[in-house]
Amino acid sequence: MKRPALRLVEVGPRDGLQTAGASVSTAAKIAFVDALSLSGLREIETGAFVSPKAVPEMADSAEVFAGIARRPGVIYSALVPNEKGLERALAAKAGKIAVFTAASETFNQKNIQASISESIERFKPVVAGSKAAGLPVRAYISTAFYCPFEGKIQPEAVIDVVRRLEELGVAEHSIGDTIGRASPDDVRRLLDLLLKSVPVEKIFLHFHDTYGMAVANALVAWEDYGVSGFDASTGGVGGCPYAPGATGNVAMEDLVFAFHASGGATKVDVKALQDAAKGLAAAMGRPVSSRLSKLSL
Amino acid sequence: MKRPALRLVEVGPRDGLQTAGASVSTAAKIAFVDALSLSGLREIETGAFVSPKAVPEMADSAEVFAGIARRPGVIYSALVPNEKGLERALAAKAGKIAVFTAASETFNQKNIQASISESIERFKPVVAGSKAAGLPVRAYISTAFYCPFEGKIQPEAVIDVVRRLEELGVAEHSIGDTIGRASPDDVRRLLDLLLKSVPVEKIFLHFHDTYGMAVANALVAWEDYGVSGFDASTGGVGGCPYAPGATGNVAMEDLVFAFHASGGATKVDVKALQDAAKGLAAAMGRPVSSRLSKLSL
Repeated sequence: MKRPALRLVEVGPRDGLQTAGASVSTAAKIAFVDALSLSGLREIETGAFVSPKAVPEMADSAEVFAGIARRPGVIYSALVPNEKGLERALAAKAGKIAVFTAASETFNQKNIQASISESIERFKPVVAGSKAAGLPVRAYISTAFYCPFEGKIQPEAVIDVVRRLEELGVAEHSIGDTIGRASPDDVRRLLDLLLKSVPVEKIFLHFHDTYGMAVANALVAWEDYGVSGFDASTGGVGGCPYAPGATGNVAMEDLVFAFHASGGATKVDVKALQDAAKGLAAAMGRPVSSRLSKLSL
Repeated sequence: MKRPALRLVEVGPRDGLQTAGASVSTAAKIAFVDALSLSGLREIETGAFVSPKAVPEMADSAEVFAGIARRPGVIYSALVPNEKGLERALAAKAGKIAVFTAASETFNQKNIQASISESIERFKPVVAGSKAAGLPVRAYISTAFYCPFEGKIQPEAVIDVVRRLEELGVAEHSIGDTIGRASPDDVRRLLDLLLKSVPVEKIFLHFHDTYGMAVANALVAWEDYGVSGFDASTGGVGGCPYAPGATGNVAMEDLVFAFHASGGATKVDVKALQDAAKGLAAAMGRPVSSRLSKLSL
């Protein structure tokens, strides 16, 4: 299998920090995004326009978007739950819009108080509004392998959601292993079916390193299936609301190091990611979890 | 490729703790080994009979061997550098003897002040004495992928050492990625050649998780090459003298979790490993680095 050039999406400032507690200041978030902008990453999910009651960590997303030094060629995206969120994201000049659903009914209900069908219904005006504004839409499909409530999720359930989102006209799907339990075999089982339904270019895989299998999963998807799109968070920040204290998203610097070590092409400077992680750890007042953050630079 | 049942060697009490500083008491080491004995692991490298000046952390290995509660069916092994070490290991009733060389001349010289040939020469009486005592010998071949001084190590250099150790009559080879830089491709390149020279049953792979690729490497070796022997340290304790603060051996609990998630057969109870890691972290006064140690039990 040809190993394609990588397309990496940094999700630290949003997915990573949304569970970090209130300790990270707006200035520190801006400094984190700016450090990431210097690393060669081409896409940074910068914030979310969601209810500040539900996610207080993202209450200052408009200020973060206003404060960052935008680098030409870098997409600064925003997560939105509905039309009101879209309006705020457009006002903040987000370059891509992300929406959020799940492959598990129970998880979606607990997470965003909607059935999968209801959440996709809500996306319709968001997708239409994004298109009218000339912005692509990314759809997150969480719990695509395991659900903390339902256990193993069958590939067919993921494919069903992907198909409905395709009909809606989203640009890409981010397939999430929310609790980090997927093994390379689980990845193979999903991709064997999924890639018959949707072009590989539209797929991003979003692994969490809760159990330490994220790098293995990403390499299998890239080496054996030609998947080129991967989400990660610099420092490995983030977590899982159902596994307190657990490791979060796979660390961008660890993932990029593994891709480079395997001959993968990215424009990303690992040292710059390590610097960004170091700054974030200082701002959070605690170490980050990436393997590379333990190495002296 | 058939995925064989796993043969796991716990190296935490020796390889893990030999760089842990003097803080771990003899009683804590005994408690750690005893906790590991309860996990279902079948082999535990329990100590080293080396110069206490060179490795002060292992000065109490005789006391550790004397203090542990031996579980029937579990091998408690010891590392020795020479005949004097072997005598002490035999007196301590070690069940297997380990010797140590490298695939990099520079590393071996700096690490044990001997050329590879000199080190193998020193093994001769150790192997003979072990055989006379009815004990198998394990040979460590460190820096088998990368050397901190020489860079990339060619597979041919590893195979040359393995062949000479085979002539000597060792029972098994533990092939070490001492600085944790190997990628799955590096593993493939070595195994493609190595398994033509030596039966796969005699090979153990010894990965460090310095850069986060250890689980990926182990799964590739097992799934695609049928390697069944792997070293790991519970908690991920250990380190690399050439990468201060870096993550050490791949964590046994993370590795076992990944094998189980991939349908691998072991008799090991992950929860018991997590308990052993928890006890060790308390004894060391600092957290261990395994992914599973971050999860609430």
